[in-house]
Amino acid sequence: MDIEGWRKKIDELDQKLVELISERARAAVAIGKLKRDTSMPIYEPDRERVVFENVQAANRGPLAGRDLVRIYERIIDVMRNVQKEEIAPKTEPADAGTELDSEVSD
Amino acid sequence: MDIEGWRKKIDELDQKLVELISERARAAVAIGKLKRDTSMPIYEPDRERVVFENVQAANRGPLAGRDLVRIYERIIDVMRNVQKEEIAPKTEPADAGTELDSEVSD
Repeated sequence: MDIEGWRKKIDELDQKLVELISERARAAVAIGKLKRDTSMPIYEPDRERVVFENVQAANRGPLAGRDLVRIYERIIDVMRNVQKEEIAPKTEPADAGTELDSEVSD
Repeated sequence: MDIEGWRKKIDELDQKLVELISERARAAVAIGKLKRDTSMPIYEPDRERVVFENVQAANRGPLAGRDLVRIYERIIDVMRNVQKEEIAPKTEPADAGTELDSEVSD
C-alpha cells in the first residue's frame, strides 16, 4: 500500500477513535455527576493507576507500554477537567451578584 | 448506573481504544518505512493539520474540539517518534564495527 492508502486507513481509524473517546468522555461526565452527588474527590490516583495498568496489559504492540501511558496521561487529564467542569460549572457561579463579581457583565 | 458500572464500561472502551491506537501505530510504522525509502520528511505540518481538522469535524461532543485536539497532539507526537525510530533504528548503527562503536558488545 502507498502512503495515501495508509493515510486513508488512518483517517478511518481516527473516526472510530473520536467515537470511542467521546463515549469514554460521556462515561466520565456520568461519573462526575455521581461524584458530585456523593462528594467524592475528582482526583483518584488509585483508579488512575488501575487504568494505566489495564492499558499496558491490553497492549500487544507495536507501541511501547510507555508510549501508550503517555497517550493515556493526556486522555485522563482531559477527562479529569471534564469532571471538574461537571462539578463546578463556570456558567453558574454560586456567588453571582456579589460586589466581587460586579465587573462581570454577563 | 453506579460508579463501578461506569468504570467497567470505561475499562471495556479502553480495550478497544488500545486496539485502535495500536492499529494506527502500525499504519504509522508502514508510512515511516515508505518515507525512509523515498527520503520524505517525518514532520509534515500540512498532514498534521488535516488530521486535527478531521478529528474536530468528526466530533459530536461531549468534549470540546480543543480537548480532542489536545489528545491528538499527544497521539501524533508518539506516532512521530515511532516513525523516527523506523527511519533511524538505534539497534542497527550504520557504522557498526568502527572504533567509536567498540564498546558496544551486542
